[in-house]
Amino acid sequence: MINSTLINIKLIIRILGLLLILEGFFMLACLPFSYYFDENDSWALIASGVFTSFVGTILWIFTRGVDKKQIGKREGYIIVTFAWIIISVFGALPFVISKTIPNYTDAFFETISGFTTTGATILTDVEAMPKGLLFWRSMTHWIGGMGIIVLSLAILPILGIGGMQLFVAEVPGPAPDKLHPRITQTAKRLWGIYVLLTGLETILLMFGGMSLFDALCHAFGTMATGGFSTQNNSIIDYSPYIQYIIIIFMIIAGTNFTLHFFVLRGYFKKVWNNEEYRFYIYTLLIVSTVITTALLVSHHTGFEKDFRDALFQTVSIITTTGYVTADYLSWPFFVWLLIFMLMFTGGSAGSTGGGVKMVRQLLLLKNSRLELKRLLHPQAVIPVRLNGKTIPQNVIFNVLAFFLIYTLIFAFGSLFMSMLGLDFETSIGSVAATLGNIGPGIGSVGPVSNYSEIPITGKWFLSFLMLLGRLELFTVLVLFSRVFWKK
Amino acid sequence: MINSTLINIKLIIRILGLLLILEGFFMLACLPFSYYFDENDSWALIASGVFTSFVGTILWIFTRGVDKKQIGKREGYIIVTFAWIIISVFGALPFVISKTIPNYTDAFFETISGFTTTGATILTDVEAMPKGLLFWRSMTHWIGGMGIIVLSLAILPILGIGGMQLFVAEVPGPAPDKLHPRITQTAKRLWGIYVLLTGLETILLMFGGMSLFDALCHAFGTMATGGFSTQNNSIIDYSPYIQYIIIIFMIIAGTNFTLHFFVLRGYFKKVWNNEEYRFYIYTLLIVSTVITTALLVSHHTGFEKDFRDALFQTVSIITTTGYVTADYLSWPFFVWLLIFMLMFTGGSAGSTGGGVKMVRQLLLLKNSRLELKRLLHPQAVIPVRLNGKTIPQNVIFNVLAFFLIYTLIFAFGSLFMSMLGLDFETSIGSVAATLGNIGPGIGSVGPVSNYSEIPITGKWFLSFLMLLGRLELFTVLVLFSRVFWKK
Repeated sequence: MINSTLINIKLIIRILGLLLILEGFFMLACLPFSYYFDENDSWALIASGVFTSFVGTILWIFTRGVDKKQIGKREGYIIVTFAWIIISVFGALPFVISKTIPNYTDAFFETISGFTTTGATILTDVEAMPKGLLFWRSMTHWIGGMGIIVLSLAILPILGIGGMQLFVAEVPGPAPDKLHPRITQTAKRLWGIYVLLTGLETILLMFGGMSLFDALCHAFGTMATGGFSTQNNSIIDYSPYIQYIIIIFMIIAGTNFTLHFFVLRGYFKKVWNNEEYRFYIYTLLIVSTVITTALLVSHHTGFEKDFRDALFQTVSIITTTGYVTADYLSWPFFVWLLIFMLMFTGGSAGSTGGGVKMVRQLLLLKNSRLELKRLLHPQAVIPVRLNGKTIPQNVIFNVLAFFLIYTLIFAFGSLFMSMLGLDFETSIGSVAATLGNIGPGIGSVGPVSNYSEIPITGKWFLSFLMLLGRLELFTVLVLFSRVFWKK
Repeated sequence: MINSTLINIKLIIRILGLLLILEGFFMLACLPFSYYFDENDSWALIASGVFTSFVGTILWIFTRGVDKKQIGKREGYIIVTFAWIIISVFGALPFVISKTIPNYTDAFFETISGFTTTGATILTDVEAMPKGLLFWRSMTHWIGGMGIIVLSLAILPILGIGGMQLFVAEVPGPAPDKLHPRITQTAKRLWGIYVLLTGLETILLMFGGMSLFDALCHAFGTMATGGFSTQNNSIIDYSPYIQYIIIIFMIIAGTNFTLHFFVLRGYFKKVWNNEEYRFYIYTLLIVSTVITTALLVSHHTGFEKDFRDALFQTVSIITTTGYVTADYLSWPFFVWLLIFMLMFTGGSAGSTGGGVKMVRQLLLLKNSRLELKRLLHPQAVIPVRLNGKTIPQNVIFNVLAFFLIYTLIFAFGSLFMSMLGLDFETSIGSVAATLGNIGPGIGSVGPVSNYSEIPITGKWFLSFLMLLGRLELFTVLVLFSRVFWKK
């Protein structure tokens, strides 16, 4: 229900202030790597960290004594959208101050690409960047992933966006009448799992010969389904063992985190009974089998390598991670068109994956089948069912509208990019890859290229698309509607 | 309501037989041009015409004494789908028998492309074809257009497909409880208008210097929003006057024919109050202005020519006609991406245009805006309104499902075409252009190319897409559902 009173701006500012204080500390947390590798980037991190926390503290102090209880849906929307914007605005500072990315547009693009767990980069030589900053870059992924888990499993269901309320019932916790207690409790549990899994992947990657630094950065990139690497060649030059580990953890990161919670409790049956999970796993298996076959037929490099590349790329795109082990644009037309289509699938709802999401695709497919039935039985009420429950009509409506708006943004976004002079494939590729929070696209933003050559306007526009896609469209779009600002 | 008894197969066969008898006569009606130009194609037309009518007569006699009243929705679906298939199967005969298109696949592709008013051609040299056969080729368009008007304004509303019932209320006529009287009455009125407009365009084209033959063929191609020309260069070499005439009549053909009926009665206000019509006209104006500007900026060939080309191409694609006055693939990236997007708009419902249709796009846009409102007011019922009336939720549901299924078919269709070895642009271009019943697409099936190089499997697949798109997807798709065939 909309709060009929004025928007509680003070509270919004207070929460954003708190986030900035935290962000500052996270920047300072990169200092150990900065000192260890001794590449002169510590002062940029210190300056940015202190400044960010300072600004946050000012906002925090300035809004003392605000009414904390007066927080409704509208405040929720504003906080979520501006949280991602403001942490990106400040998160870009270390890159600009250190002059490793002197241009603010580029630095902002890189940072919001991190926080939205997209992984699209403008860096042409990642390896040349000082390690402290590189660690901050990967950490933006990890922080973004944390934010997304809380957002999709605790905040969005309350805001009622895109069928997310479907998962509320599944998450153990208090009734969703108040934002506050629900969020803290759910957040703690899920963050615990997130930290645990990140730690586990880091250790497993170190077993494969990675340094602690590389292992942490890649674990951050994987668990957040981000895709920033510390290598210019992404994952291409790593061993098969490391590639398989990353595959496994990408699959985990693309799974609804509530299911991990169930696994920890030993409810395995509940996991496999989850229709979205099965749909997700089947899609991965079927698509990677098809691609493996296609690669084998078109002469490639031996079964194991073809299988691994096919599986890696499928998982990487479906989960919207964006790590790369092979240049898929050099694969047969059919395969890269398939990969392009996968950019519209997305991970599971409640995972760190972006895009349209598996559960929405599943509901859309189910509804399409039922629509034929409805046509023949116009009087009958034929609802969509998921996990044995009837899905309310308004949720299906919202999912259909989500898909339509996603398509519209994709279409008009591509048109906008092509107006900047980009060719057909780069236009649609850059939009699909940023809106879906994937990272690499097709055309000249393909897997072995980057976003450095995109015009400035384009970079800002794509940054906006990353935000839109990451926040499930509606969260951002409502802010542009007149109804929202009416009392 | 579904007829719970057995499907009345005899009646279906009887109606298809009747259609074949008529088709045979239409073939024979091409003979005057065959004799006049004396190019040895009359025997092929006679043989095909007599054979087709003969088969039709056999079916007709064989099914005497059938129960005509026992006709329900299911019979309706079957008749519509098989009508288009069977007239294409027989309609291809003149091309095969005369050996002008010796390969049956090619001949079938050309014929169904005609009957579905698509206008995609496999002919590399249209001008080499004997005039009698060329006339038959154009006539398939005209017959198809006739079929579509009756289908979309009289049959589909009764079958309840894709919001088509919205227009029922607008068409004066008896209550829609029985198929028969409604169809005959509406059909007579609308065919009258169709014939009148075709005649008018023919005369106006002859004023511009066209022969009766060329004028008729192009009038057929325009009024059916088909796109077959008698020239290898489509409309490129014709005078500006002729191009403007064709623009005007394409716009007319892409308008809901009920509105023409209103114009004849003098209800001009009712026309302009029609929201779909305004949306259609505004889209045409805005898009052609944008393209004109883009062409002027990118150095082209003078204002009048740029304006004319831009307008012609915009109208041709939006109405799904597919006539060409310029190679739009040589225009700036941005423009041809825009033209590609236009392939998903389609003409008005109740016109001869194919594609998604203006009214659906309008409803989808309206619903998207309202969805934001619904998010903020989850308890309120916020319906979509069109022409001052509330649109029932199930219609919006159906429109959303239509759009989704259209997108799915486009995506998987493109994937299928790329599996045949076609490149990215040709794959998506051929599917968009056939599914939308447009004709020329992008890539190697662009405006100055044709479909001759598509592999055989691809030609059959694209033929199926033309049928699917032309019959509003659902009409064909229900035949593949299990529910349909259950008693």
